[in-house]
Amino acid sequence: MKSDGEIARAARLKPIAEVAARLGLGPDDLDPYGRHIAKIEDEALARAGAAERGKLVLVTAINPTPAGEGKTTTTIGLGDALNRIGRKAVICLREPSLGPCFGQKGGAAGGGYAQVVPMERINLHFTGDFHAISAAHNLVAAMVDNHLYWGNALDLDLRRITWRRVVDMNDRALRDVVLSLGGPKNGFPRQSGFDITVASEVMAAFCLAQDLADLEARLSRMVVGYRRDRSAVTVADLGAAGAMAALLRDAFRPNLVQTLEGNPALVHGGPFANIAHGCNSVAATRAALGFGDIVVTEAGFGADLGAEKFLDIKCRKAGLAPDCAVVVATVRALKMHGGVARSDLDRENLTALEAGLANLGRHVANLAKFGLPVIVAVNRFTSDTAAEFALVRDVCRERFGVEAVSCSHWADGSAGAVGLAEAVSAVLDENRPSAFRTLYPDEMPLADKVATVAREIYGAGEVIWDERARADLVQFEAAGFGRLPVCIAKTQYSFSANPALTGAPSGHALPVREVRLSAGAGFVVVLCGEINTMPGLPRHPAAEHIGVDAAGQIVGLS
Amino acid sequence: MKSDGEIARAARLKPIAEVAARLGLGPDDLDPYGRHIAKIEDEALARAGAAERGKLVLVTAINPTPAGEGKTTTTIGLGDALNRIGRKAVICLREPSLGPCFGQKGGAAGGGYAQVVPMERINLHFTGDFHAISAAHNLVAAMVDNHLYWGNALDLDLRRITWRRVVDMNDRALRDVVLSLGGPKNGFPRQSGFDITVASEVMAAFCLAQDLADLEARLSRMVVGYRRDRSAVTVADLGAAGAMAALLRDAFRPNLVQTLEGNPALVHGGPFANIAHGCNSVAATRAALGFGDIVVTEAGFGADLGAEKFLDIKCRKAGLAPDCAVVVATVRALKMHGGVARSDLDRENLTALEAGLANLGRHVANLAKFGLPVIVAVNRFTSDTAAEFALVRDVCRERFGVEAVSCSHWADGSAGAVGLAEAVSAVLDENRPSAFRTLYPDEMPLADKVATVAREIYGAGEVIWDERARADLVQFEAAGFGRLPVCIAKTQYSFSANPALTGAPSGHALPVREVRLSAGAGFVVVLCGEINTMPGLPRHPAAEHIGVDAAGQIVGLS
Repeated sequence: MKSDGEIARAARLKPIAEVAARLGLGPDDLDPYGRHIAKIEDEALARAGAAERGKLVLVTAINPTPAGEGKTTTTIGLGDALNRIGRKAVICLREPSLGPCFGQKGGAAGGGYAQVVPMERINLHFTGDFHAISAAHNLVAAMVDNHLYWGNALDLDLRRITWRRVVDMNDRALRDVVLSLGGPKNGFPRQSGFDITVASEVMAAFCLAQDLADLEARLSRMVVGYRRDRSAVTVADLGAAGAMAALLRDAFRPNLVQTLEGNPALVHGGPFANIAHGCNSVAATRAALGFGDIVVTEAGFGADLGAEKFLDIKCRKAGLAPDCAVVVATVRALKMHGGVARSDLDRENLTALEAGLANLGRHVANLAKFGLPVIVAVNRFTSDTAAEFALVRDVCRERFGVEAVSCSHWADGSAGAVGLAEAVSAVLDENRPSAFRTLYPDEMPLADKVATVAREIYGAGEVIWDERARADLVQFEAAGFGRLPVCIAKTQYSFSANPALTGAPSGHALPVREVRLSAGAGFVVVLCGEINTMPGLPRHPAAEHIGVDAAGQIVGLS
Repeated sequence: MKSDGEIARAARLKPIAEVAARLGLGPDDLDPYGRHIAKIEDEALARAGAAERGKLVLVTAINPTPAGEGKTTTTIGLGDALNRIGRKAVICLREPSLGPCFGQKGGAAGGGYAQVVPMERINLHFTGDFHAISAAHNLVAAMVDNHLYWGNALDLDLRRITWRRVVDMNDRALRDVVLSLGGPKNGFPRQSGFDITVASEVMAAFCLAQDLADLEARLSRMVVGYRRDRSAVTVADLGAAGAMAALLRDAFRPNLVQTLEGNPALVHGGPFANIAHGCNSVAATRAALGFGDIVVTEAGFGADLGAEKFLDIKCRKAGLAPDCAVVVATVRALKMHGGVARSDLDRENLTALEAGLANLGRHVANLAKFGLPVIVAVNRFTSDTAAEFALVRDVCRERFGVEAVSCSHWADGSAGAVGLAEAVSAVLDENRPSAFRTLYPDEMPLADKVATVAREIYGAGEVIWDERARADLVQFEAAGFGRLPVCIAKTQYSFSANPALTGAPSGHALPVREVRLSAGAGFVVVLCGEINTMPGLPRHPAAEHIGVDAAGQIVGLS
């Protein structure tokens, strides 16, 4: 099997205008970035917004394991297969973050024969959206310290400045720094730090904004710190929102690329799925719903984090009503949830598989609580046995009441996901009015929202509150933020806050350590356990093997 | 008079393919970034490199004053005027830095009716080149601290790490920071800091590299720090050069834009003119010489810094031989050099003007030392009187032996620089073999190179060496770097190291505080006085007035 990079480089890409034409977009609707990438112009976006008619399919997954699930490849494979069977499908994905490409995980543009291309550009600078977000974020930071330097007229408490800086790089040395050393000409020393760009609140607001005006309003509301009396100082107080909007103007338009099979994909925005909501921009999803008959999109991590936030934050706020959910699982990952060690995954183990299916079952049941029809996609590996798949299919059908479809898009492209596409089409063609509902109403108190997600989605027995966190929630409600949804940040590896608890634990306690207001993004972040917002590099970073060959091709990026 | 932004927005831009066609470039030679910007593809660059036939004109200036000289506008105006009189001229400029747009100075794409467009894109993210340079620089920084974290096999001395981080933002709080706080999981605490991106050695190497392979070789040689035995640790030792080259691959191709009059301009790279050499990329200049009959380019600050480095660093290393130099002056700035206060500049003052002309005279004489024919461009202001211009013209002709031409391109576009264009054409049409020579030979000892520039260009009486700096030079020579040119960083406001000494001081002492090896860029930086490599924001940053209007237009950027 060729590497992802080899497959991507061997691909014959269509001119992006040709891909766009299939969506009814003419040359004037495109702002090209090279021959194979384009941003979609505002007028075309407005047309799409007015038209919005497509069906929305969410691709989510069981809790991730080191065995890999292939959620992005399944999203792409399903999109390609829907096009293959004659549907006009558009794929919506998050943009990859630059930093992790040089660390362990490599790129994030799919894999095998289910990729979006041009892979190197998408994984590296792409259209510069993340650079623009970094610049907008860091402009505020510079203006905060500049404000202190020139006399602090807003009376910010030096110890309570919450706005940090960002960089799109895995750089653990920047997590915790002291700034403004070196004497009076450099300002007032204080402790702060850097997050990776995808953890910026600007990223989350960017992805949830309806239009540029809404984005600027969200930016304005962002809190940069507090005064001694605990009143908030915002981006608007600093006068930075307009300049941020100027920096983000071009970035805000969705990016059109293509799959290896030449089908359209919008790749735009990419917030973290723990301290943020983990899915592509509302702008892209909206545009896709206007241009396509079916939109296939994904949410970060497993369904407990990604799908819950997609539904309770993004769909709630953007007024989107998804029509179907696909839960991706693999036999290998299910066996890990059933207790099998990674080194033993190649062996058939029906007992462990059956135990591990509890994880899948919980996610399926959870999605039904949102009123969504569910299909299970079993992403096939060569080590899977017929008996293993049969067990998954039977348990899904008999115990979970859903169909499980085997797919091999990674190896076979769209041909490997035709069964899944047909199953999804069948659900959509029933044309049932969407029964989508959020898990909790806006008016529910914040603490009850957390308790609801903990109980209904995580299977937790109780929420254990840090006293300070509980008090902060009360303060947020008093300040008028009680109607916001909650964005729970916990480990992605388990329904619980303990990454070692695989399968489908229940009755556990969800410990809330801290809460943070993301007033611009429009949610309250609830931190359960340590959440790292600045990754580090491994002992041998992938960067050591990335380079440019004699022909000018980028190598080592996958 | 309209603002720069209003003029730029009112401009009817040609499709970039049409601008490119005038240079013999077809659609396949372009990688479009929007409709009005394109990068030039490698094959076309190779063709241009093989063809190289244009004449090279350097635009430089007297020492800058707060009155403004208009070097960039004159470069653009001259280019437009050369095209107007039927010459095939290509303009080469530096890319503007993002950070200063939000501070005091505004953008850097020319002004009035001598601008390159699209102004907002060029001033903000443009094609992402500076973002790519920041990322490449910061990847090394992350890999340095990651290397320490994982055991420091290269034995770097934590106290002698010279590689800092960069951000394209005016952020004084980052000048001096302590990193890696917060305990063992965040690494080993140490003091470091951030420079603005244009001060990165990656930027300088990027602008001096002949091709991508040369760039990677230069990146490899860059020193990140020293061991206890003072031996150097390089980017190659870290294994980062390939990944950096991958990050810079697309950025390395020159950017084609147009002037307000639709003439071609290559805008590419932009190193500082103090700790680096201050002119656009060799790649762009080379390409322009292949595509055009005349290439008009500029160098940073006054001729003592910008032109000297353009000639002694860029032309020496790239094998370029300029054919003519244009020195830009204004009556107002010359009066300031003659001792007039800014508030009195509107009044005719022939005595002060005559005194201030000494500054111009020194620059003219200096350029003759490089074997270059010189023309003086007097960039006209409405307050200038006929008697003032007559004095400049007469002194130039009689005492300096050069012609001074009055120009009004800022108000009138190319029509205002026809005289200058004709004067330049006349010089070029003499077709004299270039008499260009560098000021000192490669084999001259480093300290003597500094002394030569100090004596011949600055008019200094002596160089006062910091003892440590002198010892470091000896060490650089022992390590094999003795043949590098020197890059002197001093104030731009005076021939001396004292910004208050305007006019043409002589006999002063040049104090060398520190020397630094830029092994990848390929020069030795000689620091004379405090050089700030991270600007701050003013009390009221321009950012407060930048925004996006209801029509989606960026406003407040000029």
